[in-house]
Amino acid sequence: MEVLDAHCHTVELGPLTDERFAAWCTESPWPPAPGTSFPDSRLGLAIRRWCAPALGLSPFAPLAEYAESRRSLPDAGARLLAAAGLSALLVDTGLTGGAALDELAAAAHAPVHSVVRLEQLAVSVAETAGGSGFGRSFSDALAAQLDAGAVAVKSIAAYRHGLDLDPERPGPAEVVRAADAWLRSGERLADPVLLRHLLWTAVDCGRPIQFHTGFGDPDAALLRADPAHLQPFCAATRSARVPIVLLHCYPYHRQAAWLAQLYPHVYADVGLAVTYTGARFDAVLAEFLELAPFGKVLYSSDAYGLPELYLVGAQQFRHSIRHVLADLPPGEAERIAGLVAAGNARRVYALDA
Amino acid sequence: MEVLDAHCHTVELGPLTDERFAAWCTESPWPPAPGTSFPDSRLGLAIRRWCAPALGLSPFAPLAEYAESRRSLPDAGARLLAAAGLSALLVDTGLTGGAALDELAAAAHAPVHSVVRLEQLAVSVAETAGGSGFGRSFSDALAAQLDAGAVAVKSIAAYRHGLDLDPERPGPAEVVRAADAWLRSGERLADPVLLRHLLWTAVDCGRPIQFHTGFGDPDAALLRADPAHLQPFCAATRSARVPIVLLHCYPYHRQAAWLAQLYPHVYADVGLAVTYTGARFDAVLAEFLELAPFGKVLYSSDAYGLPELYLVGAQQFRHSIRHVLADLPPGEAERIAGLVAAGNARRVYALDA
Amino acid sequence: MEVLDAHCHTVELGPLTDERFAAWCTESPWPPAPGTSFPDSRLGLAIRRWCAPALGLSPFAPLAEYAESRRSLPDAGARLLAAAGLSALLVDTGLTGGAALDELAAAAHAPVHSVVRLEQLAVSVAETAGGSGFGRSFSDALAAQLDAGAVAVKSIAAYRHGLDLDPERPGPAEVVRAADAWLRSGERLADPVLLRHLLWTAVDCGRPIQFHTGFGDPDAALLRADPAHLQPFCAATRSARVPIVLLHCYPYHRQAAWLAQLYPHVYADVGLAVTYTGARFDAVLAEFLELAPFGKVLYSSDAYGLPELYLVGAQQFRHSIRHVLADLPPGEAERIAGLVAAGNARRVYALDA
Repeated sequence: MEVLDAHCHTVELGPLTDERFAAWCTESPWPPAPGTSFPDSRLGLAIRRWCAPALGLSPFAPLAEYAESRRSLPDAGARLLAAAGLSALLVDTGLTGGAALDELAAAAHAPVHSVVRLEQLAVSVAETAGGSGFGRSFSDALAAQLDAGAVAVKSIAAYRHGLDLDPERPGPAEVVRAADAWLRSGERLADPVLLRHLLWTAVDCGRPIQFHTGFGDPDAALLRADPAHLQPFCAATRSARVPIVLLHCYPYHRQAAWLAQLYPHVYADVGLAVTYTGARFDAVLAEFLELAPFGKVLYSSDAYGLPELYLVGAQQFRHSIRHVLADLPPGEAERIAGLVAAGNARRVYALDA
Repeated sequence: MEVLDAHCHTVELGPLTDERFAAWCTESPWPPAPGTSFPDSRLGLAIRRWCAPALGLSPFAPLAEYAESRRSLPDAGARLLAAAGLSALLVDTGLTGGAALDELAAAAHAPVHSVVRLEQLAVSVAETAGGSGFGRSFSDALAAQLDAGAVAVKSIAAYRHGLDLDPERPGPAEVVRAADAWLRSGERLADPVLLRHLLWTAVDCGRPIQFHTGFGDPDAALLRADPAHLQPFCAATRSARVPIVLLHCYPYHRQAAWLAQLYPHVYADVGLAVTYTGARFDAVLAEFLELAPFGKVLYSSDAYGLPELYLVGAQQFRHSIRHVLADLPPGEAERIAGLVAAGNARRVYALDA
Repeated sequence: MEVLDAHCHTVELGPLTDERFAAWCTESPWPPAPGTSFPDSRLGLAIRRWCAPALGLSPFAPLAEYAESRRSLPDAGARLLAAAGLSALLVDTGLTGGAALDELAAAAHAPVHSVVRLEQLAVSVAETAGGSGFGRSFSDALAAQLDAGAVAVKSIAAYRHGLDLDPERPGPAEVVRAADAWLRSGERLADPVLLRHLLWTAVDCGRPIQFHTGFGDPDAALLRADPAHLQPFCAATRSARVPIVLLHCYPYHRQAAWLAQLYPHVYADVGLAVTYTGARFDAVLAEFLELAPFGKVLYSSDAYGLPELYLVGAQQFRHSIRHVLADLPPGEAERIAGLVAAGNARRVYALDA
């Protein structure tokens, strides 16, 4: 089954210490509690189930044995990534480190398309533009990135403010004032006026907007990352017809699926949930597909760093979508699986254009 | 198994274009996104599974074939409705269009009881009463409707304000002021003082109050439609012993089930969720029945317009309740299914009185 | 399988009227609605399934037969409790009535460890200390209880204010003012400054802090008992390394599990959900174990009064954990089950120290 990874980050292909490996298995930035371990989790089991065979081991081989095998194979990272069998990857380029995009593409044997992280682009623009020039400079920079081939943008407003944003486009004077204050402060970009300005500039550009929603690292307040907070923004942008893709969504994925039914331009993406919940993704995917029409749900892994995450995501998804649609006539199940696995992403991100 | 549809709207029995058929398959008022279709969803699959056989086709017959067959049978609508095998229907008469209640009853081969939509009755009263007379006129009009046979009332406060209402009964002077302001404004009835006044007038009348909660059309802000917002109102009305029926509830049905356990006069109704989630209603119904005692959950379809929705609801429910109770001794499963399917509704709405 | 009940209350070992028995089967303090019964629920079915055999009856024996048998056996209570096969019990001593702790230990054939309820200890201290001495007296009293062997503390801030508390430690002058005002008022301890003071005093003591979260009796507003409200408190206390155990959590257990992954000192406990949801605990436990590492989830029953609740909890848990881990290699499943059943609690509460 063709699987297109519609939201991920770049990979680290080199060898990893056990400690570094474990750190990639959580959204927590801190060491584990005494007596606990991050890979001793649904994610760790999923790695053992889906990745051990790609390194020549039995499914569920113990982690120590897996790590040993991984160390002994110089090309383990590339082998795992290639085993995912992806047809394309959409990569949020807003995180630093890891392989360059052409290295990633070569290792994955698949084309890579970039996604512009709005907040990071704003920071790079701010270094040269003052408050009064910020709006125009950001708009120009975003247009340039999209002209250069980026297929979508991504917002991490959930990490900087919460999704409970005023949905309206801020006025030019407001933006100048907010940009001035931000540039003077030297702080992280978190002002809601600026976050809204980035979003509305993206709306003007007409490309799909990916939103981090639901669980993530501790920068995000979970209660304010519920995608249902975006309902007013969905309403305000409907007539612009720019696709809004709600990423992750869990544990609010039923809410996201409802928005995806209600608003023609809204989509739900299963990334991050697919890797972290492992075997339980059977249940989570089924919940995504309760209210959302089948044309509105997209596969992604949200993999970052660990090559295992690309492979776990793709294989767990292939397994779970078959499970979720098992009660359907075979041709029908195959057709719907194809939409969620790749077809919807091709259409929404205009990848065949 | 006797199934009593404890909350629905009236039906459209005539032929439908494909476009109109698809529009009945969503809560969205807008055309679908390019490349997507509303019936390509759990609801559409459920229609193919449960309704195709009622038109002489195989389960899961393709939609085009189904539509063809539907067009070729002049009595398709009545046939589908009758196939639901309902023992009675409680109809919210607040939506316009469709079959008259006696036509609906004839086609369904079952008695129909009406449910008064509070906000609509208020509008009809306001046309003749001024602000100072509004309270009394509304109270008289509601009493008249109940005397004429209506078995319950329904509130759509979730669509007009949200369920985060002050639970207290508003004072008479407040109501006059709010009614005056509303009548002068010419706007939709959305003032929370008036919405509360309608509810407390209904409490005084002693009949069950149905509340829209959970997902619905875009008029409702999902976050403010969580039935947990009604907890203070449940507390404030407990001693009045008027049944409060939380409709739909999804995706907050576990919250609704908890209220139904906690407050003696609170009930949870599975309507809308049963049709929209289709085969996944197995899981959703199981969640309703985690905390709610078996005497506190009611079947309904929330069907509107499309005859298929009455049939999908009834058949999916019959299927799912058996699945959910499969681990019980057969006599026990049958008894509990009978409560949720019809017995609880008969008792709560006093249908045998 | 060793099962350690890491949060419960004391038991009533004597005979019970049918009415009293039914009252123990709900969190509602009110009589059931006409035509309904609290044991006619998932909990009642679980009692019939798991407890009837302990009294020599068939699984699912009718409740009337079960009650008859219970009345005929003078030692029914102790027999049920012993049948739970618990290896230890952690008992919140904040509720009055029932067996003394040594009686409970004797009947359970297991050691009992006490847990101090912060709000109750504060009330007992306030009787002798004035506002200005409250802070010090409370601190001394808590230290004395922990020195005397209590292994943890418990907060019911969710019942008194909600979990949406300012996470910061209140200043000494604030505490004096709040204590004065509370003592003069003669009211229940609900002031958020005082509730926060109790929590930070507990943090200073270094023992695990159990929090009531999620569903409970009507004193708690469900919306404000979502454990996600505790995220700022989790962040503020992280460096103190004092374990925070989120009790119950349902229906927000996926949120709790996320906090348990993210913050090294946060844990999720399945109590109350395990008894109330009965056979459905298979699904609920699986949801707990989606995001939480296996070292972060703890078994408890939250049983109170009814001996059946200790037994239902333990047996349903043994059944459900096997079900949830059925897809794993047997040794792995056994190891993980052992952590959740007892190992994690031994480590977090330092029971082997």
